[in-house]
Amino acid sequence: MAGYAATRRYLLRIEYDGRTFAGWQRQDGAPTVQGAIEAAAAKLAGEAVAVLGAGRTDAGVHASGQAAHLDLRTDIPVRKVADALNFHLRPDPVAVLSASPVPAAFHARFSATARHYRYVIVNRRADLALAQGFAWRVPSRLDAGAMQQAAQALAGCHDFSTFRDAQCQSASPVKTLDALKVTRTGDRIEVTCSAPSFLHRQVRSIVGSLVEVGRGQEAIGWIAEILAARNRAACGPVAPAEGLYLEHVDYPPEALAPVGMDAG
Amino acid sequence: MAGYAATRRYLLRIEYDGRTFAGWQRQDGAPTVQGAIEAAAAKLAGEAVAVLGAGRTDAGVHASGQAAHLDLRTDIPVRKVADALNFHLRPDPVAVLSASPVPAAFHARFSATARHYRYVIVNRRADLALAQGFAWRVPSRLDAGAMQQAAQALAGCHDFSTFRDAQCQSASPVKTLDALKVTRTGDRIEVTCSAPSFLHRQVRSIVGSLVEVGRGQEAIGWIAEILAARNRAACGPVAPAEGLYLEHVDYPPEALAPVGMDAG
Repeated sequence: MAGYAATRRYLLRIEYDGRTFAGWQRQDGAPTVQGAIEAAAAKLAGEAVAVLGAGRTDAGVHASGQAAHLDLRTDIPVRKVADALNFHLRPDPVAVLSASPVPAAFHARFSATARHYRYVIVNRRADLALAQGFAWRVPSRLDAGAMQQAAQALAGCHDFSTFRDAQCQSASPVKTLDALKVTRTGDRIEVTCSAPSFLHRQVRSIVGSLVEVGRGQEAIGWIAEILAARNRAACGPVAPAEGLYLEHVDYPPEALAPVGMDAG
Repeated sequence: MAGYAATRRYLLRIEYDGRTFAGWQRQDGAPTVQGAIEAAAAKLAGEAVAVLGAGRTDAGVHASGQAAHLDLRTDIPVRKVADALNFHLRPDPVAVLSASPVPAAFHARFSATARHYRYVIVNRRADLALAQGFAWRVPSRLDAGAMQQAAQALAGCHDFSTFRDAQCQSASPVKTLDALKVTRTGDRIEVTCSAPSFLHRQVRSIVGSLVEVGRGQEAIGWIAEILAARNRAACGPVAPAEGLYLEHVDYPPEALAPVGMDAG
């Protein structure tokens, strides 16, 4: 194996605790997830390595399944790449769950066909001791059934200008959402949402607005009304970052097609 | 209401993050959960207050439903006692989920009829980013089915000397366990265990031994063998504190019978 050092593209599946990072995207002078993984990869490869994510997450947003790709020139066996990256990532709260060789044409962002997000609300008066920083505590009683009903107005293809952050760089406000699901288990309410792609702060804008319905401040039909308004000013308060998790990114099988072990 | 300050006994249901505490029990010079709640109660009552827990948890062990009682002399309305305690507990990672008036004969430890524990294992190679400090990561592949089968030898009334810490102060090593359940969901393995009462480090001793079976180091029948040995030296390695949660403490309805609002 010695001296074997072809360049190979890898798909990484990544978990991180968003609390200690100024978000995914590399920034000068602030700890970021992308920066941490690029530094670990550089230690492994002995040269600068760019890591490209499927999407940017904001400061405080978590991931149980972010995806990214990088090109790595190393003589470490493929099956040990994830371990080696994790070794260099310690003690940062970032873990590479898997590192799989992918074709050179694979791109974590452009090859993705869907993103899956989960938002966690704890609906209780008492402060969070175990989930501090990992959920949004809402003290007033929420009607999850009303939230679920209201959310259905958002399924399908719409102009989501109402639920789009002013900083959003997307060319168009038109996106297609799968049906949202709002479920309650005890005092835990989870909102899950999937789409080919999202606008900046779209999930948090939707969840914040649904909570207005849940606490009875707005009627179930209000979500459809503010969607139709196509006006950022009509949106409810944006839900905090700490309840949001990027859970998974889908790729079509052909984008992941196995490549020969001596590609390079 | 002014000037109304009868003493009333309360049952508290408590959640805490065990990472920052030297366990439940009050100690000089170390932060403990009991100490934190007693300090909060003293601020509320303007006098020293003793808080008595259903059981002691070790350093690093979490609770989603510890129980404790205290006698409080305050003119704060009953329904606001939990909020007031939480106000004084901030920013410690301890939350009073509820504070309910109970008869003066109620005792959090002696009235309890069952304790319910959960142990969380994450069975994967990658470091824990989201669950760091909240689960035990076991890198080698575990057979949860074998663990479940082996665990059934522990159900019922037995001499648990093998699974008892040397420091245990219990008068007898004989305890009665409900059936243990070992379940796997993805890479998460949970062991749940209930009993009227437990020996010191009994759950962690059991889980550590079950993991030896899960990773194929020992046969399924080994758990029954080491139980029969009644010898601490026969036990597997004790599982770390960070995966353990005290989830709930049961009390019979008569112990919790509502008391008049002007008892005292």
